[in-house]
Amino acid sequence: MIKAGIIGATGYAGNELVRLLTGHRETQIVWYGSRSYIDKKYAQVYQNMFQIVEDACLDDNIEELAKQVDVIFTATPQGFLAGVLTEEILKDTKVVDLSADYRIKDVAVYEKWYGIEHKSPQFIGEAVYGLCEINRDTIRGARLVANPGCYTTCSILTAYPLVKAGLIAPDTLIIDAKSGTSGAGRGAKLPNLYCEVNENIKAYGVTSHRHTPEIEEQLGYAAGREIAVNFTPHLVPMNRGILVTEYASLLRKPDGSLPSYEEVREAYDRCYADEKFIRVLEQDICPETKWVEGSNYVDINFKIDARTGRIIMMGALDNLVKGAAGQAVQNMNLLFGFDEAEGLELVPMFP
Amino acid sequence: MIKAGIIGATGYAGNELVRLLTGHRETQIVWYGSRSYIDKKYAQVYQNMFQIVEDACLDDNIEELAKQVDVIFTATPQGFLAGVLTEEILKDTKVVDLSADYRIKDVAVYEKWYGIEHKSPQFIGEAVYGLCEINRDTIRGARLVANPGCYTTCSILTAYPLVKAGLIAPDTLIIDAKSGTSGAGRGAKLPNLYCEVNENIKAYGVTSHRHTPEIEEQLGYAAGREIAVNFTPHLVPMNRGILVTEYASLLRKPDGSLPSYEEVREAYDRCYADEKFIRVLEQDICPETKWVEGSNYVDINFKIDARTGRIIMMGALDNLVKGAAGQAVQNMNLLFGFDEAEGLELVPMFP
Amino acid sequence: MIKAGIIGATGYAGNELVRLLTGHRETQIVWYGSRSYIDKKYAQVYQNMFQIVEDACLDDNIEELAKQVDVIFTATPQGFLAGVLTEEILKDTKVVDLSADYRIKDVAVYEKWYGIEHKSPQFIGEAVYGLCEINRDTIRGARLVANPGCYTTCSILTAYPLVKAGLIAPDTLIIDAKSGTSGAGRGAKLPNLYCEVNENIKAYGVTSHRHTPEIEEQLGYAAGREIAVNFTPHLVPMNRGILVTEYASLLRKPDGSLPSYEEVREAYDRCYADEKFIRVLEQDICPETKWVEGSNYVDINFKIDARTGRIIMMGALDNLVKGAAGQAVQNMNLLFGFDEAEGLELVPMFP
Amino acid sequence: MIKAGIIGATGYAGNELVRLLTGHRETQIVWYGSRSYIDKKYAQVYQNMFQIVEDACLDDNIEELAKQVDVIFTATPQGFLAGVLTEEILKDTKVVDLSADYRIKDVAVYEKWYGIEHKSPQFIGEAVYGLCEINRDTIRGARLVANPGCYTTCSILTAYPLVKAGLIAPDTLIIDAKSGTSGAGRGAKLPNLYCEVNENIKAYGVTSHRHTPEIEEQLGYAAGREIAVNFTPHLVPMNRGILVTEYASLLRKPDGSLPSYEEVREAYDRCYADEKFIRVLEQDICPETKWVEGSNYVDINFKIDARTGRIIMMGALDNLVKGAAGQAVQNMNLLFGFDEAEGLELVPMFP
Repeated sequence: MIKAGIIGATGYAGNELVRLLTGHRETQIVWYGSRSYIDKKYAQVYQNMFQIVEDACLDDNIEELAKQVDVIFTATPQGFLAGVLTEEILKDTKVVDLSADYRIKDVAVYEKWYGIEHKSPQFIGEAVYGLCEINRDTIRGARLVANPGCYTTCSILTAYPLVKAGLIAPDTLIIDAKSGTSGAGRGAKLPNLYCEVNENIKAYGVTSHRHTPEIEEQLGYAAGREIAVNFTPHLVPMNRGILVTEYASLLRKPDGSLPSYEEVREAYDRCYADEKFIRVLEQDICPETKWVEGSNYVDINFKIDARTGRIIMMGALDNLVKGAAGQAVQNMNLLFGFDEAEGLELVPMFP
Repeated sequence: MIKAGIIGATGYAGNELVRLLTGHRETQIVWYGSRSYIDKKYAQVYQNMFQIVEDACLDDNIEELAKQVDVIFTATPQGFLAGVLTEEILKDTKVVDLSADYRIKDVAVYEKWYGIEHKSPQFIGEAVYGLCEINRDTIRGARLVANPGCYTTCSILTAYPLVKAGLIAPDTLIIDAKSGTSGAGRGAKLPNLYCEVNENIKAYGVTSHRHTPEIEEQLGYAAGREIAVNFTPHLVPMNRGILVTEYASLLRKPDGSLPSYEEVREAYDRCYADEKFIRVLEQDICPETKWVEGSNYVDINFKIDARTGRIIMMGALDNLVKGAAGQAVQNMNLLFGFDEAEGLELVPMFP
Repeated sequence: MIKAGIIGATGYAGNELVRLLTGHRETQIVWYGSRSYIDKKYAQVYQNMFQIVEDACLDDNIEELAKQVDVIFTATPQGFLAGVLTEEILKDTKVVDLSADYRIKDVAVYEKWYGIEHKSPQFIGEAVYGLCEINRDTIRGARLVANPGCYTTCSILTAYPLVKAGLIAPDTLIIDAKSGTSGAGRGAKLPNLYCEVNENIKAYGVTSHRHTPEIEEQLGYAAGREIAVNFTPHLVPMNRGILVTEYASLLRKPDGSLPSYEEVREAYDRCYADEKFIRVLEQDICPETKWVEGSNYVDINFKIDARTGRIIMMGALDNLVKGAAGQAVQNMNLLFGFDEAEGLELVPMFP
Repeated sequence: MIKAGIIGATGYAGNELVRLLTGHRETQIVWYGSRSYIDKKYAQVYQNMFQIVEDACLDDNIEELAKQVDVIFTATPQGFLAGVLTEEILKDTKVVDLSADYRIKDVAVYEKWYGIEHKSPQFIGEAVYGLCEINRDTIRGARLVANPGCYTTCSILTAYPLVKAGLIAPDTLIIDAKSGTSGAGRGAKLPNLYCEVNENIKAYGVTSHRHTPEIEEQLGYAAGREIAVNFTPHLVPMNRGILVTEYASLLRKPDGSLPSYEEVREAYDRCYADEKFIRVLEQDICPETKWVEGSNYVDINFKIDARTGRIIMMGALDNLVKGAAGQAVQNMNLLFGFDEAEGLELVPMFP
């Protein structure tokens, strides 16, 4: 049994961490950190936890916390962890950071897209990008895991096998992403009001969303070179779920023909056949966010368009589980040598 | 490890049974009965079960099924089980019936409200009304459990302690109930289309809903006499959840005063203080369906109105869990002597 | 052509006023007052008005405004108008107040339920309660109209004919009301966030909602004496619409029998047969909020329950139209002698 | 005053036609055709029309209808009009067809994508594609107007000016479209049930949706040659609204530079500056479906991505108005020389 602390426990991702860790047989939460609700009972902030969690919220003193726990999850705004992380903390405990602070290796890229100075670039090098299915072995030995973003997890996993296999031209990649509203967080902002979101759909952050460089960096590793993609997120009137629809030109074979369904499928299976949490669907079944809701699954499929020579890839996940808290727990399981699925045996809830 | 069969496995309640039993450590589903989808893979009907359930759907031959399993769940239309149940079946297996066939003791009342003839009234007597918190001990020894309706579970549990304690006048009871749309089932009917339900609320079955006599019978037992209540269900644009708002006149004490908050609270605590799945909330916190979604909890609270001498009771549950499949599993746990909460340690999902 | 000014033009009710007045042939809006958005183009606050409204927002200087316009609409927080209204303003212009400041004749009741001091009680006497179908003639000659609340309009109109006709016992009246979320306004508050409201239903303000005394006062006039009722509002995951379900004991006739369907229907028809905006539905058709969305209609119907001796009345309206801006325009039409339906010939939008 | 008949008046598009024509000062509906509801009062099928429309539904005898009216709207399944249209009908009346029967000039393309034989190809030649802003003058003299599809209207109008101006490479065009559920019609089908659509998003018809050839044909005219595009529709949990996000490579200028914001904007303005129903938004404002709901507007904007050399175009409309009934009325206005905006002065409803 290990001890865990959460900083940012009262955001939506924090609450999802609490839900998942409550069902984890090897972990006990001992610190519910929340700057906004110090001393308030956690279950009064999240009434779903009534009679399940009895603790009150604590502050975000990460140095003190590091002495008490085996692992810290930071579900905090960009810049928080970078501003407080020290070598001492990393000597005391493992850290899984759900923010973007250590996801991007090039600090200049981080500072450009996020518009803030990085306060502890010295830890960027050792941070491991916690996309479990891709970096499993490296994660196991890490002290600091940069838990991927929700959009990026879905975007990367959906295209990764085809980039890796050289089946598509990476620079033709266009990612049209759709997200439920919990991705926007629990801040009381006008654009997130019920009446503004409901019965509405819009794109936002067009050409400038911060998950773009993260996707480019990771898919660039698969491609073996730097790439640039288009990423356009949309806000959808639903609580949870991300669907990505990705378009890319297939690379023709020497005889000019397109890769076949079987060849593409084979590339996916090579990467994911043994992955518990990635389900490549049967032919012609399109992923739907509802089919993965509440679970750690990513559902993926694709369709070849012989008319245009493009492939349409689709991926769906629950942004709060595989897109945030679920992947964080999966990373923790890797860090501590637990069964990778411990606490994540969640059957998607329908409807 | 016991073996379970489900008849009606492809309705929403059936699918929820599959979700819950998949996580149950003492039970294995061996029969996914579905008249509409015989031979089709279950996971092709419910894509959330992809790579989780590999079985194909079977028919609804309950006699054959009874020989193979320890328990049968019937999530079927009214009249189905009454039409096929035999003594042989009950000798072979236990039955938890999610339909209304054996809920009402007076067959004439059943036939009047449901408008169909009851084909096996000889089993009504032995059937136990499976409201676990009220009838726990009787359920343990039963062969046939009548699993309560979704509205009725919520309506009864919310008022039961006060009727039992003689704090309210039972005939003044008015139940205004609001339900998500999964309660209407998965049948392809025009009133259940997205565009008909979304952005809309309406009452239906006013004065004539079939859950009325079930509520009256059970609360009548608590009152010690026959009672009549008003029950009005409403359709709400959400997938899951039932909220009941119940109104009743408080019985004044000999000195003419109303019962106090503490006296009412005490009546609730007397019944529910040790109940894991019933959470009587802190003063002034109103139950919300979202706080119990996906779980087996019922959240209850009340407010006294000194101006009118009435009490307003409120209860919330997930209609597919405590209102159907969760309570069915809870009944199964009682029938087989398992931990009553096995498979039901579900933390409500928010948001 | 008259000139109109709106104070509070950037709230949801204010925006609905703009929508309706834009289609009004006798009125021109010349002042879009909004304390939060002074000098910002109105169409940048409400993008639906792009290329329709070219004006920028102005402040809330009501004295200056009164000199420029024939009518002022105040869609402002409680207490605003009471704090600034003067005799000079009322000499210059007519005022339709969408807040509660002048709705309640007893200033002590207002101050108790709203928890604020009333700064200009001297105008309460002359203010006319703008429930057009009830007070039409008085409204015509008024200077100051207190536009009714959304819940109250629906609650009162649904029960009024039966209270008036002495068919029900007024003190048995229980009003269970359900509202879409636009009624909560456009303020950036956590409980109004999409993820908090969506897939959720809850009661709020139980026994203490401020619309209670307004309902009691108006129905008390119909009853000829003071009455007390229970009013319980609920928040429903939809943008627009209020549905009320009202319960009351029918008064039995001398022979002990209940009033018949025809007798009750006749009472409704006596009040509403000639009312354009009140539609008493055909027998057994339940009102649904969706059927009136975007329009000024109130749909009403009822059902007698012979078993309990009660009647269930139901009413539905669009809270932003008949429950706010539509009724305000209807009042303006009465004030200026326009066709009462001018600008309000809105066909409900479905779906 | 002209007389109009609707065949298919009880579908969602049919009901929207009724809503719009009810407010049209030059038109009277005299025939509510509905095969499913013959002799039933229209207002009993669509309760929003209670006390507004008194007529009962009639059959779909188009020959008889043609003798009685000046214009027929067919909001019918694919193949209906092609199966019954005759020269006599077109001599008697004008026809605005909301189905796809006469939209595609190449009958082989129609038969391939729709999978049905075209029964009256002799009328394809004279049919005018009723995209008002593009074909205004031709529409004026037509007998038979092929009203464009909802997706196609939005997809074409969003890209048309840039294709026309040669600013983008047409074959790089990728259209990712998102639609509310009313586009799926009022048929009682399982995938359109509330619980299947709500809290869910999915792509469908990937690489095979029937609106693809329609888009290709019309944009091909603008390009001056045949083109092939990718079009992927998605189902979004909302009643109304279509948003398209379109991606294309900008054609570089001789000096290798990309077109500037101003140059692209100028291309849009050249086409749409005088168009009442097309609103090209201010820089950096993304279209949202909610801002056009209930109205005939199309909101359009774009963003240049210098990093990838692509442009992202966005368009939003109400699929039942500009995407169906509104455009049909606009076409009728052109056919009869009415003010093109008559009956369409609809302010978008928010929220």
